[in-house]
Amino acid sequence: MAEAGHSSNKLHFQLDRISFFTDGVFAIAITLLVIEFKVPIVEHPTDAALWDRLAHMGLLLLGFLISFCIVGYYWSVHHRIFGYVEKYTSRLIWLNLMFLFSVVLLPFTSGLLGEYASETHLHLPYGIYVVNICFTALMNALLWFYVSNPKHDILTHKISRERILLGFYFTLVVPILFVISFVVSLYEPTIGRLIPILIPIVLKYGMTGLTARAAANEKSA
Amino acid sequence: MAEAGHSSNKLHFQLDRISFFTDGVFAIAITLLVIEFKVPIVEHPTDAALWDRLAHMGLLLLGFLISFCIVGYYWSVHHRIFGYVEKYTSRLIWLNLMFLFSVVLLPFTSGLLGEYASETHLHLPYGIYVVNICFTALMNALLWFYVSNPKHDILTHKISRERILLGFYFTLVVPILFVISFVVSLYEPTIGRLIPILIPIVLKYGMTGLTARAAANEKSA
Amino acid sequence: MAEAGHSSNKLHFQLDRISFFTDGVFAIAITLLVIEFKVPIVEHPTDAALWDRLAHMGLLLLGFLISFCIVGYYWSVHHRIFGYVEKYTSRLIWLNLMFLFSVVLLPFTSGLLGEYASETHLHLPYGIYVVNICFTALMNALLWFYVSNPKHDILTHKISRERILLGFYFTLVVPILFVISFVVSLYEPTIGRLIPILIPIVLKYGMTGLTARAAANEKSA
Amino acid sequence: MAEAGHSSNKLHFQLDRISFFTDGVFAIAITLLVIEFKVPIVEHPTDAALWDRLAHMGLLLLGFLISFCIVGYYWSVHHRIFGYVEKYTSRLIWLNLMFLFSVVLLPFTSGLLGEYASETHLHLPYGIYVVNICFTALMNALLWFYVSNPKHDILTHKISRERILLGFYFTLVVPILFVISFVVSLYEPTIGRLIPILIPIVLKYGMTGLTARAAANEKSA
Repeated sequence: MAEAGHSSNKLHFQLDRISFFTDGVFAIAITLLVIEFKVPIVEHPTDAALWDRLAHMGLLLLGFLISFCIVGYYWSVHHRIFGYVEKYTSRLIWLNLMFLFSVVLLPFTSGLLGEYASETHLHLPYGIYVVNICFTALMNALLWFYVSNPKHDILTHKISRERILLGFYFTLVVPILFVISFVVSLYEPTIGRLIPILIPIVLKYGMTGLTARAAANEKSA
Repeated sequence: MAEAGHSSNKLHFQLDRISFFTDGVFAIAITLLVIEFKVPIVEHPTDAALWDRLAHMGLLLLGFLISFCIVGYYWSVHHRIFGYVEKYTSRLIWLNLMFLFSVVLLPFTSGLLGEYASETHLHLPYGIYVVNICFTALMNALLWFYVSNPKHDILTHKISRERILLGFYFTLVVPILFVISFVVSLYEPTIGRLIPILIPIVLKYGMTGLTARAAANEKSA
Repeated sequence: MAEAGHSSNKLHFQLDRISFFTDGVFAIAITLLVIEFKVPIVEHPTDAALWDRLAHMGLLLLGFLISFCIVGYYWSVHHRIFGYVEKYTSRLIWLNLMFLFSVVLLPFTSGLLGEYASETHLHLPYGIYVVNICFTALMNALLWFYVSNPKHDILTHKISRERILLGFYFTLVVPILFVISFVVSLYEPTIGRLIPILIPIVLKYGMTGLTARAAANEKSA
Repeated sequence: MAEAGHSSNKLHFQLDRISFFTDGVFAIAITLLVIEFKVPIVEHPTDAALWDRLAHMGLLLLGFLISFCIVGYYWSVHHRIFGYVEKYTSRLIWLNLMFLFSVVLLPFTSGLLGEYASETHLHLPYGIYVVNICFTALMNALLWFYVSNPKHDILTHKISRERILLGFYFTLVVPILFVISFVVSLYEPTIGRLIPILIPIVLKYGMTGLTARAAANEKSA
């Protein structure tokens, strides 16, 4: 550990800076999603002509809302994961950077999806978008397994096996539903693309049993 | 609550991160407002020709100043709301994210308004801008009612009913004056568009009585 | 004061958030300066052709360095000013926002200057840039006089009159040298534009006497 | 020192703000790297035609990953350096700003490199990129020597000579391998450009002996 020489009373702030930097990257990535929203230029503008152009952006707005929620969701998961962290290592910093790398690509893949949103015969943009989401979820899972592993000794306290798995299941919900959504969209584009709307429902009601069990287990321990 | 497993001495920093992330998004949104200010390209530039082009941007500058103040105002309201918060919940994070979603759209709607600023026969750009402001105010009010509700148990101390309502009235000032401004602008574009200039005056002098009463009530309690 | 209802142990963090937000805006503004650096597109590129295009950007690089230093300088002055602040008021937040408004315009005026850097017969771009710098310095001075005024009761401790004036003089150095630079550049463009290079020298060596006197005065007090 | 007048209990936060600002600039610079990833516009899009266009971006993605890692690496080095800092001076702020100046240029030079990635007969884009990396490493080294020098009295505790040199060697790895990569690429473009892939290997395995010695020396001291 190259950090071995640091004074111990700087440790907290050093750890906090990793979160500051992460929050900064998330804040920019989530705001850049909107950059693809370009102000339409109409030559001889009337309200009707402009409305016509903006109406085509309705799909984009929905896509933007979904991407915003995904980035927001992964921020909240990062927030939850780092709530357990007390120390840091070089490897934690690099796993975190690779997670951020994937997050930073989302404005691009989301923009690609938006650009071709009206071309329902295309599968590639959505495929690339889903790959990006799966990669983000994968890095998220790796970060979680690294942090929650007591062997690395960076936790505030030991996390129960149930809670570790619970966190992993939460991470899986988003990519699994997107993969299903993609496969369905190959045959039924409209239905397929609507499947991600189920994500909040699954996250809220589908995980209740598992969450309760993890909480119960922790109290009994 | 998935956060139930966190060590209690991380709670403060976990809460602070929500503010850091929010501040980051606000900082970027307020700076992106200026992105619509594109450097004009004049082929054979003279000071006079360039001045001519820049003079047309005067309206844009005023619009940018107004949007800057609105984003700044909602940041200051967020700042005030979170001054009462001591704990957080998943729902607080999501209400906050939806509030940010609305804020992040402002550079786009503000840019749309600016692009067609000189086309006074158009009502759509201003209408969309006002809808965005109303949505931001709505999310702000929901956030405030969620935070101030003692049932959710996230407050540093109980807030008096008067102060809760006072915060709500403060939130209402901006959207109400913009809706009035929009309606008037349908008939009298120039006068209508100037109405938002009243906002700081109403916020400063129109609310004195209500503020004093809330303060008095709190002391007597 | 709408903040009157806050719990006192949140005060520090509430104050810190003003700095976080400010740092975020400065960080974005200083990074956006480089946005005007657009990658040149050469049709049939050779190293020589590309070098030719990039060489024209040398002036831009110098201009970018100067703007970077100015934004960096005003950040460091803000940093110094808020080092004295212990409480905050609504007016402080708004003075700070107006200061940020001016800072956020700098990437635009700096980009305008850069775009017409090679057109030495133009005075308008440089004039607008200098106006922006003067406005930033003005808001900075207002912020300083507001903070340092013991009447507003937001200081950690009383600041000596000498130190208040010293801070004001430091704020004046940049705009004064830029105004001189602009006036000279009307007659001697090249010499005029080089004058701002004197700023670090004046700030480092020209203020030694005043700084020493302020420090001495504080110790004797 | 103009900061001499600050109350001592603000010192920590004043120091932290330098890191916040730095983290903000890094977060934006690392996110802007992706800005060069422009969504390709295909007239009559098919999956095949779009894939064709995106496949050309594969090199860009690799280049983006490398630049991302470099900015991430220098962030982690800054993080490590400031882990030793307890006080600050004007000169520290300016050295830090010059370091950030170089970091902020990386999205531009990285974009230039990406734009001409397929033109393997060009050496200029890669040359400029390597110069930027060397300049960043140089500023990093100056920052480290300034901080680690006990004469400046800004450290939490004295750093051993071995550790100071170790930090310097770590800083040197990146620019040295890039210079070698550039020289080789003049003769063997493909092999040359792959050399930076060695960086993580050298940083991880090539420095073990030196790191162990520095740690041992510190314990014995």
